[in-house]
Amino acid sequence: MQYSAINFSEKLSKFSEHWSPKVIAQMNDYQLKLAKFQGEFVWHDHPDTDEVFIVIEGCLDIEFRDGKVSLAEGEMYVVPKGVEHKPVAYQECKVLLVEPRGVVNTGEADSSLKAENDVWI
Amino acid sequence: MQYSAINFSEKLSKFSEHWSPKVIAQMNDYQLKLAKFQGEFVWHDHPDTDEVFIVIEGCLDIEFRDGKVSLAEGEMYVVPKGVEHKPVAYQECKVLLVEPRGVVNTGEADSSLKAENDVWI
Repeated sequence: MQYSAINFSEKLSKFSEHWSPKVIAQMNDYQLKLAKFQGEFVWHDHPDTDEVFIVIEGCLDIEFRDGKVSLAEGEMYVVPKGVEHKPVAYQECKVLLVEPRGVVNTGEADSSLKAENDVWI
Repeated sequence: MQYSAINFSEKLSKFSEHWSPKVIAQMNDYQLKLAKFQGEFVWHDHPDTDEVFIVIEGCLDIEFRDGKVSLAEGEMYVVPKGVEHKPVAYQECKVLLVEPRGVVNTGEADSSLKAENDVWI
Protein backbone atom coordinates (compact mmCIF):
# COMPACT_ATOMS: atom_id res chain seq x y z
CA MET A 1 0.00 0.00 0.00
CA GLN A 2 1.04 3.59 -0.65
CA TYR A 3 1.54 5.81 2.38
CA SER A 4 2.24 9.52 2.01
CA ALA A 5 4.11 11.89 4.28
CA ILE A 6 2.45 15.11 5.36
CA ASN A 7 4.82 17.85 4.21
CA PHE A 8 4.61 21.20 6.01
CA SER A 9 5.96 23.27 3.08
CA GLU A 10 3.59 21.69 0.62
CA LYS A 11 0.62 22.26 2.94
CA LEU A 12 1.70 25.86 3.65
CA SER A 13 1.74 26.59 -0.08
CA LYS A 14 -1.99 25.87 -0.23
CA PHE A 15 -3.18 28.99 1.58
CA SER A 16 -2.10 32.54 2.20
CA GLU A 17 -4.60 34.08 4.62
CA HIS A 18 -3.47 35.00 8.10
CA TRP A 19 -4.95 33.83 11.40
CA SER A 20 -6.86 31.00 9.76
CA PRO A 21 -5.57 27.61 10.96
CA LYS A 22 -5.90 24.69 8.54
CA VAL A 23 -6.08 21.10 9.73
CA ILE A 24 -3.39 18.80 8.29
CA ALA A 25 -3.76 15.75 10.54
CA GLN A 26 -5.78 14.27 13.36
CA MET A 27 -4.52 12.10 16.24
CA ASN A 28 -7.31 10.67 18.38
CA ASP A 29 -9.45 13.72 19.22
CA TYR A 30 -6.63 16.17 18.63
CA GLN A 31 -5.75 18.04 15.48
CA LEU A 32 -2.53 19.41 14.06
CA LYS A 33 -3.08 22.69 12.24
CA LEU A 34 -0.85 24.97 10.18
CA ALA A 35 -1.37 28.71 10.32
CA LYS A 36 0.22 31.88 9.05
CA PHE A 37 0.32 34.74 11.52
CA GLN A 38 1.05 38.37 10.76
CA GLY A 39 0.28 41.38 12.90
CA GLU A 40 -1.53 41.33 16.23
CA PHE A 41 -4.21 38.81 17.13
CA VAL A 42 -6.90 39.45 19.76
CA TRP A 43 -6.66 38.79 23.46
CA HIS A 44 -8.43 35.52 24.19
CA ASP A 45 -8.25 32.32 26.16
CA HIS A 46 -9.38 28.73 25.77
CA PRO A 47 -11.18 27.82 29.00
CA ASP A 48 -11.15 24.07 28.37
CA THR A 49 -7.78 23.28 26.87
CA ASP A 50 -4.08 23.93 26.69
CA GLU A 51 -2.76 24.95 23.28
CA VAL A 52 0.57 24.10 21.64
CA PHE A 53 2.39 26.60 19.38
CA ILE A 54 5.38 25.30 17.38
CA VAL A 55 7.17 27.82 15.14
CA ILE A 56 7.99 26.35 11.72
CA GLU A 57 9.35 29.57 10.18
CA GLY A 58 9.72 33.14 11.42
CA CYS A 59 9.24 34.54 14.90
CA LEU A 60 6.23 34.71 17.18
CA ASP A 61 5.58 36.57 20.39
CA ILE A 62 2.86 35.27 22.67
CA GLU A 63 1.87 38.06 25.01
CA PHE A 64 0.38 37.40 28.41
CA ARG A 65 -1.16 39.93 30.77
CA ASP A 66 2.03 39.87 32.86
CA GLY A 67 4.76 39.14 30.33
CA LYS A 68 5.46 37.40 27.06
CA VAL A 69 7.37 34.57 25.43
CA SER A 70 9.31 35.05 22.18
CA LEU A 71 9.55 32.01 19.91
CA ALA A 72 11.85 31.49 16.93
CA GLU A 73 11.95 28.64 14.41
CA GLY A 74 12.42 25.34 16.23
CA GLU A 75 10.86 26.62 19.42
CA MET A 76 7.50 25.94 21.03
CA TYR A 77 5.30 26.87 23.95
CA VAL A 78 2.21 25.44 25.64
CA VAL A 79 -0.34 28.08 26.62
CA PRO A 80 -2.23 26.67 29.63
CA LYS A 81 -5.99 26.53 29.51
CA GLY A 82 -7.76 29.60 30.76
CA VAL A 83 -4.72 31.86 30.37
CA GLU A 84 -5.34 35.01 28.34
CA HIS A 85 -2.87 35.41 25.51
CA LYS A 86 -2.33 37.43 22.36
CA PRO A 87 -0.12 36.12 19.53
CA VAL A 88 1.86 38.84 17.74
CA ALA A 89 4.02 38.37 14.64
CA TYR A 90 5.93 41.41 13.41
CA GLN A 91 6.73 39.56 10.17
CA GLU A 92 4.80 36.63 8.74
CA CYS A 93 5.28 33.57 10.90
CA LYS A 94 4.34 29.97 10.10
CA VAL A 95 3.09 27.97 13.03
CA LEU A 96 2.03 24.41 13.82
CA LEU A 97 -0.76 24.22 16.39
CA VAL A 98 -1.80 21.16 18.38
CA GLU A 99 -5.13 21.26 20.17
CA PRO A 100 -8.34 19.28 20.56
CA ARG A 101 -10.65 19.14 17.57
CA GLY A 102 -13.23 21.90 17.76
CA VAL A 103 -11.13 24.64 19.35
CA VAL A 104 -12.03 28.07 17.94
CA ASN A 105 -9.02 30.29 17.23
CA THR A 106 -10.42 33.29 19.07
CA GLY A 107 -11.66 31.32 22.08
CA GLU A 108 -14.68 33.11 23.49
CA ALA A 109 -13.59 36.54 22.28
CA ASP A 110 -15.90 38.40 19.92
CA SER A 111 -13.63 39.20 17.00
CA SER A 112 -13.64 39.55 13.23
CA LEU A 113 -10.55 37.32 13.31
CA LYS A 114 -12.65 34.30 14.24
CA ALA A 115 -11.83 31.68 11.60
CA GLU A 116 -13.90 28.87 10.18
CA ASN A 117 -13.14 25.75 12.18
CA ASP A 118 -12.12 22.25 11.09
CA VAL A 119 -10.98 23.25 7.59
CA TRP A 120 -8.67 20.57 6.15
CA ILE A 121 -6.05 21.15 3.50
CA MET B 1 6.77 37.31 34.73
CA GLN B 2 9.44 35.46 32.81
CA TYR B 3 8.27 32.93 30.23
CA SER B 4 10.73 30.69 28.41
CA ALA B 5 10.51 29.08 24.99
CA ILE B 6 11.08 25.35 24.66
CA ASN B 7 13.95 25.05 22.17
CA PHE B 8 14.27 21.75 20.30
CA SER B 9 18.04 22.05 19.68
CA GLU B 10 18.77 22.86 23.28
CA LYS B 11 16.66 19.95 24.48
CA LEU B 12 18.22 17.58 21.94
CA SER B 13 21.69 18.46 23.23
CA LYS B 14 20.74 17.02 26.63
CA PHE B 15 20.76 13.36 25.65
CA SER B 16 22.39 11.06 23.13
CA GLU B 17 20.81 7.63 23.55
CA HIS B 18 18.66 6.25 20.77
CA TRP B 19 15.05 5.05 21.01
CA SER B 20 14.51 6.75 24.35
CA PRO B 21 11.91 9.53 24.06
CA LYS B 22 12.23 12.45 26.49
CA VAL B 23 9.26 14.59 27.47
CA ILE B 24 9.66 18.30 26.77
CA ALA B 25 6.09 19.52 27.26
CA GLN B 26 2.61 18.46 28.26
CA MET B 27 -0.69 19.68 26.80
CA ASN B 28 -3.73 18.42 28.70
CA ASP B 29 -3.13 14.66 28.95
CA TYR B 30 -0.81 14.59 25.94
CA GLN B 31 2.95 14.85 25.88
CA LEU B 32 5.43 16.14 23.33
CA LYS B 33 8.62 14.08 23.33
CA LEU B 34 11.94 14.37 21.53
CA ALA B 35 13.78 11.23 20.49
CA LYS B 36 16.85 10.23 18.51
CA PHE B 37 16.40 7.20 16.30
CA GLN B 38 19.13 5.19 14.65
CA GLY B 39 18.90 1.69 13.21
CA GLU B 40 15.81 -0.50 13.29
CA PHE B 41 13.23 -0.43 16.05
CA VAL B 42 10.95 -3.36 16.86
CA TRP B 43 7.59 -4.14 15.30
CA HIS B 44 4.89 -2.97 17.69
CA ASP B 45 1.57 -1.22 17.90
CA HIS B 46 -0.28 0.99 20.35
CA PRO B 47 -3.73 -0.54 20.78
CA ASP B 48 -5.27 2.51 22.44
CA THR B 49 -3.88 5.51 20.63
CA ASP B 50 -2.71 7.11 17.43
CA GLU B 51 0.88 8.37 17.44
CA VAL B 52 2.36 11.45 15.74
CA PHE B 53 5.89 11.43 14.29
CA ILE B 54 7.35 14.79 13.20
CA VAL B 55 10.88 14.74 11.73
CA ILE B 56 13.03 17.58 13.11
CA GLU B 57 16.30 16.49 11.44
CA GLY B 58 17.30 13.58 9.24
CA CYS B 59 15.13 10.95 7.61
CA LEU B 60 12.81 8.32 9.02
CA ASP B 61 11.09 5.36 7.47
CA ILE B 62 8.03 3.97 9.20
CA GLU B 63 7.46 0.47 7.94
CA PHE B 64 4.04 -1.14 7.94
CA ARG B 65 3.22 -4.76 7.21
CA ASP B 66 2.05 -3.77 3.72
CA GLY B 67 4.22 -0.77 2.87
CA LYS B 68 6.08 2.15 4.37
CA VAL B 69 6.19 5.92 4.58
CA SER B 70 9.45 7.85 4.23
CA LEU B 71 9.70 11.11 6.15
CA ALA B 72 12.26 13.89 5.76
CA GLU B 73 12.79 17.03 7.84
CA GLY B 74 9.57 19.05 7.92
CA GLU B 75 7.38 16.03 7.35
CA MET B 76 5.09 14.10 9.65
CA TYR B 77 2.82 11.09 9.84
CA VAL B 78 0.11 9.84 12.17
CA VAL B 79 0.29 6.10 12.83
CA PRO B 80 -3.28 4.97 13.61
CA LYS B 81 -3.94 3.07 16.80
CA GLY B 82 -3.58 -0.67 16.53
CA VAL B 83 -1.49 -0.54 13.36
CA GLU B 84 1.77 -2.45 13.55
CA HIS B 85 4.76 -0.33 12.60
CA LYS B 86 8.53 -0.36 12.75
CA PRO B 87 10.52 2.90 12.67
CA VAL B 88 13.83 2.62 10.79
CA ALA B 89 16.51 5.33 10.55
CA TYR B 90 19.52 4.58 8.35
CA GLN B 91 21.28 7.63 9.80
CA GLU B 92 20.51 9.30 13.10
CA CYS B 93 17.15 11.03 12.94
CA LYS B 94 15.67 13.50 15.43
CA VAL B 95 11.96 13.21 15.94
CA LEU B 96 9.18 14.98 17.81
CA LEU B 97 6.47 12.63 19.06
CA VAL B 98 2.99 13.59 20.21
CA GLU B 99 0.98 11.02 22.11
CA PRO B 100 -0.99 10.60 25.32
CA ARG B 101 0.97 10.57 28.57
CA GLY B 102 1.85 7.03 29.54
CA VAL B 103 2.43 5.53 26.10
CA VAL B 104 5.29 3.01 26.15
CA ASN B 105 7.62 3.28 23.15
CA THR B 106 7.50 -0.44 22.36
CA GLY B 107 3.75 -0.78 22.83
CA GLU B 108 3.04 -4.30 24.03
CA ALA B 109 6.10 -5.81 22.34
CA ASP B 110 8.64 -7.56 24.55
CA SER B 111 11.87 -5.80 23.64
CA SER B 112 15.16 -4.64 25.15
CA LEU B 113 14.41 -1.33 23.44
CA LYS B 114 11.62 -0.57 25.90
CA ALA B 115 12.50 2.83 27.37
CA GLU B 116 11.74 4.33 30.74
CA ASN B 117 8.53 6.31 30.43
CA ASP B 118 7.70 9.90 31.39
CA VAL B 119 11.31 11.11 31.59
CA TRP B 120 11.43 14.91 31.35
CA ILE B 121 14.39 16.92 30.15
